[in-house]
Amino acid sequence: MKIPASLERLVAALARLPGIGEKTATRLAFYILREPEEYAATLAESVLGARTRIALCPQCHHITEEGLCTVCRDTTRDDSTVCVIEGIPDLLALEATGHYRGLYHVLHGSLAPLKGVGPEDLMLDTLVQRMGNGHLQEIIAATSVGVEGEATALYLKRLAQPFEVKVTRIAQGIPMGGDLEYMDQVTLARALEGRREL
Amino acid sequence: MKIPASLERLVAALARLPGIGEKTATRLAFYILREPEEYAATLAESVLGARTRIALCPQCHHITEEGLCTVCRDTTRDDSTVCVIEGIPDLLALEATGHYRGLYHVLHGSLAPLKGVGPEDLMLDTLVQRMGNGHLQEIIAATSVGVEGEATALYLKRLAQPFEVKVTRIAQGIPMGGDLEYMDQVTLARALEGRREL
Repeated sequence: MKIPASLERLVAALARLPGIGEKTATRLAFYILREPEEYAATLAESVLGARTRIALCPQCHHITEEGLCTVCRDTTRDDSTVCVIEGIPDLLALEATGHYRGLYHVLHGSLAPLKGVGPEDLMLDTLVQRMGNGHLQEIIAATSVGVEGEATALYLKRLAQPFEVKVTRIAQGIPMGGDLEYMDQVTLARALEGRREL
Repeated sequence: MKIPASLERLVAALARLPGIGEKTATRLAFYILREPEEYAATLAESVLGARTRIALCPQCHHITEEGLCTVCRDTTRDDSTVCVIEGIPDLLALEATGHYRGLYHVLHGSLAPLKGVGPEDLMLDTLVQRMGNGHLQEIIAATSVGVEGEATALYLKRLAQPFEVKVTRIAQGIPMGGDLEYMDQVTLARALEGRREL
């Protein structure tokens, strides 16, 4: 391929991004070349800026630019409830509902012994500390619904036993717009089990 | 959304790339945050490096890092034939075949009066200069097969008339692996018209 070395480097760097193959990377690189130079400057600055400025909140491991994250710093939130999730996108999705006023704890993963992910690979030490701090009353296990998420939720239950902390699990059932006809058996069974009086 | 400003800027910069929506941009941004810091540095450097170092070849308008591009500089290539294409990806695709030993001329577009693209928007002045340089014997109109590409090819034919330069058009027909059953009528008609004796 007769392309200049600097373009080849750009294509290689872009192709490392998830879901971006070499063809797409080449298309993106040409776009960057065609746009005014400010765009390349903005993109480069924002990549470096985000990577160097963003750290994890020491309390809940959400991303933050300094010290505690915006959720942990918000004194209007209920610090007796902590919702435990696998990743930051889960936190953003829950925040977007506007229905939750407690705090979070991001595990950055879920238990997956087959992939070699054990409890020591998750952000659990700080969660145990939070369990022992006296205010915490409820932990909502909002890990994903599936083998790994369930195993993680059960593990949280076990961790909480020595403390006076209730562990709840998010509800499982038919999602909005879900057609019973197309639901899998496990979902249907759980929707029946979890039925509530109207 | 409770995300730090520097991450928001990164997502916005990534979402300007073609085919990348806000969801994908967010996923890419998190990937950049999770990767070692060298990756962010490499990505930023390669964006700036490519954008500032790459220019267009003054002769054929292919991309180059300095002066003439690698194709124009290659003295083993046949400078009596120039293949005219719409964009750099076309050039890369032709080079990848390894079947063409002449030079190129990248128009950076095709005639599209309905979109307001006229001859003055294409890199045609330098092509006319090349037509008049004495060595040029053949121009291969390798613009795309479709209304705009055909119009551009006919325009090239007209431009070449005052010079002693032959203008040829790339062959149209059934592509490799093409099933006659699924070909459109225009392609089938052109494949018949362009038949050759075996």
